Amino acid sequence: MVTAVIGVGLIGGSLAIELRTKGVSDHIIGVDSNGQHAVEALALGIVDDMMDLESAVMKADLVILTTPVKAAVILLPQILDKIRPDTVVMDMGSTKDEICKAVKHHPNRNQYVASHPIAGTENSGPKAALKNLFSHKIGILCDISQSNDKAVALAKSIYQALDMNLVYMDSDSHDMHVAYVSHISHISSFVLAITVLDIEKNTSTIFDLAGSGFASTVRLAKSSPAMWGPIFEQNAKYISQALGSYIEKLSEFKAHIDNNNGQAVQQLMEKANEIRKILKD
Amino acid sequence: MVTAVIGVGLIGGSLAIELRTKGVSDHIIGVDSNGQHAVEALALGIVDDMMDLESAVMKADLVILTTPVKAAVILLPQILDKIRPDTVVMDMGSTKDEICKAVKHHPNRNQYVASHPIAGTENSGPKAALKNLFSHKIGILCDISQSNDKAVALAKSIYQALDMNLVYMDSDSHDMHVAYVSHISHISSFVLAITVLDIEKNTSTIFDLAGSGFASTVRLAKSSPAMWGPIFEQNAKYISQALGSYIEKLSEFKAHIDNNNGQAVQQLMEKANEIRKILKD
Repeated sequence: MVTAVIGVGLIGGSLAIELRTKGVSDHIIGVDSNGQHAVEALALGIVDDMMDLESAVMKADLVILTTPVKAAVILLPQILDKIRPDTVVMDMGSTKDEICKAVKHHPNRNQYVASHPIAGTENSGPKAALKNLFSHKIGILCDISQSNDKAVALAKSIYQALDMNLVYMDSDSHDMHVAYVSHISHISSFVLAITVLDIEKNTSTIFDLAGSGFASTVRLAKSSPAMWGPIFEQNAKYISQALGSYIEKLSEFKAHIDNNNGQAVQQLMEKANEIRKILKD
Repeated sequence: MVTAVIGVGLIGGSLAIELRTKGVSDHIIGVDSNGQHAVEALALGIVDDMMDLESAVMKADLVILTTPVKAAVILLPQILDKIRPDTVVMDMGSTKDEICKAVKHHPNRNQYVASHPIAGTENSGPKAALKNLFSHKIGILCDISQSNDKAVALAKSIYQALDMNLVYMDSDSHDMHVAYVSHISHISSFVLAITVLDIEKNTSTIFDLAGSGFASTVRLAKSSPAMWGPIFEQNAKYISQALGSYIEKLSEFKAHIDNNNGQAVQQLMEKANEIRKILKD
């Protein structure tokens, strides 16, 4: 099977590695508007060829869109315009509703499957691509009633080849859930980094005091603005709601500290500890 | 050298393991008000004996206080009351100013060295004790002009045996710095967990969507309320200041999302990315 990977960064690159390793695809074509990433993806052997979008889409049995979500909204209709009747298209963006809306009435909508692998690191570009990035994590397929059976079956088989556990949702529910469990984690890290950098102008002090707790909490603050900006824009409604709730609860926690209400602080921490039941490792 | 470790939990237990492994101490006495922890520490071979506080302090050449900081404020004066003239006392609490104030005018103040190893995990109790917990992290000694030369020399040698990099500060500066780089990281995690648990009543959804990013950001929400409550109480002034600044910056970030000001969001993320220079791994 010939696969075109549109956007050979962390996700696209890691995906290409798995598709080849697992024998899913014997020819992988990369497409990337970033010339340096194109050169790196070839040099690293992640892809067999780099092509322009139209040539790649014409040749591919499977097109997987792994660009930042702003580009996905623009490229997906163009891809559906050009594909062959038997080609299947998937995207792997972190938002789903706007991307799905962009092709809602496209005549080839049923050749497309909306998806999102919940996997990643704070790094980006083909050099950040990792083997086993997806293993044992969750892959979400959205609005599958809008896709034809062949497309859904192929999308499932791709996620199974990646060793992911499949979950099905509508795209609006997806966006709400990821606002809470993924997007505000990133914002809390970005803003924690800014807060600490602001006060600790002497960076050697931060380095000195950085225990593993701080380092893990702030790790996501290293994430790519080019990737996350469009996610925050497309999922603004749910992110605003989640962030509003987070700020309100932080203010409540602060008020208890200011009022020396140790018992209330204790109760909040005990409630937070319930996350242990869900995230065991 | 006979060492008494007062509080055989994560820090006390990990410390006892290192002191024995590195040959610093040939006899380690544990003291713990929690009977189960006492039994576990003995069973795990972390300590040679468990004793009451007074007996342990009378026998020890070195007393290291590793209880939660609320107990440290109460126990430290009692320990200084009872030590022999040649005994050295250290504490390893996460706050320093209140603990130092509690013994400021004690006649044996100069036998005591205030310290804080910036190391830990979200787990607690002797079973959580880890080999190499302290290696290559930062150990802070505070207000060393208040301690005699012998005590400072011994405290330094203990931190060197733990493979820690030594930093010197006054206790007030210590508390301000750790409020920003450690204490608000914990609060941001506790509150993130509460926010997500509140919205995602269906816990299987959280488990499903929990990518490694969310898991690392929320890891500290598993931390012990019994340990952190007193830290937040004792360092309330600086934590309130740090948390106020964090909430203000989060509100600013949210306003930019609400106003669809992508450029401002981008600039904030780029600023946050500067944390890469400081935390490289």
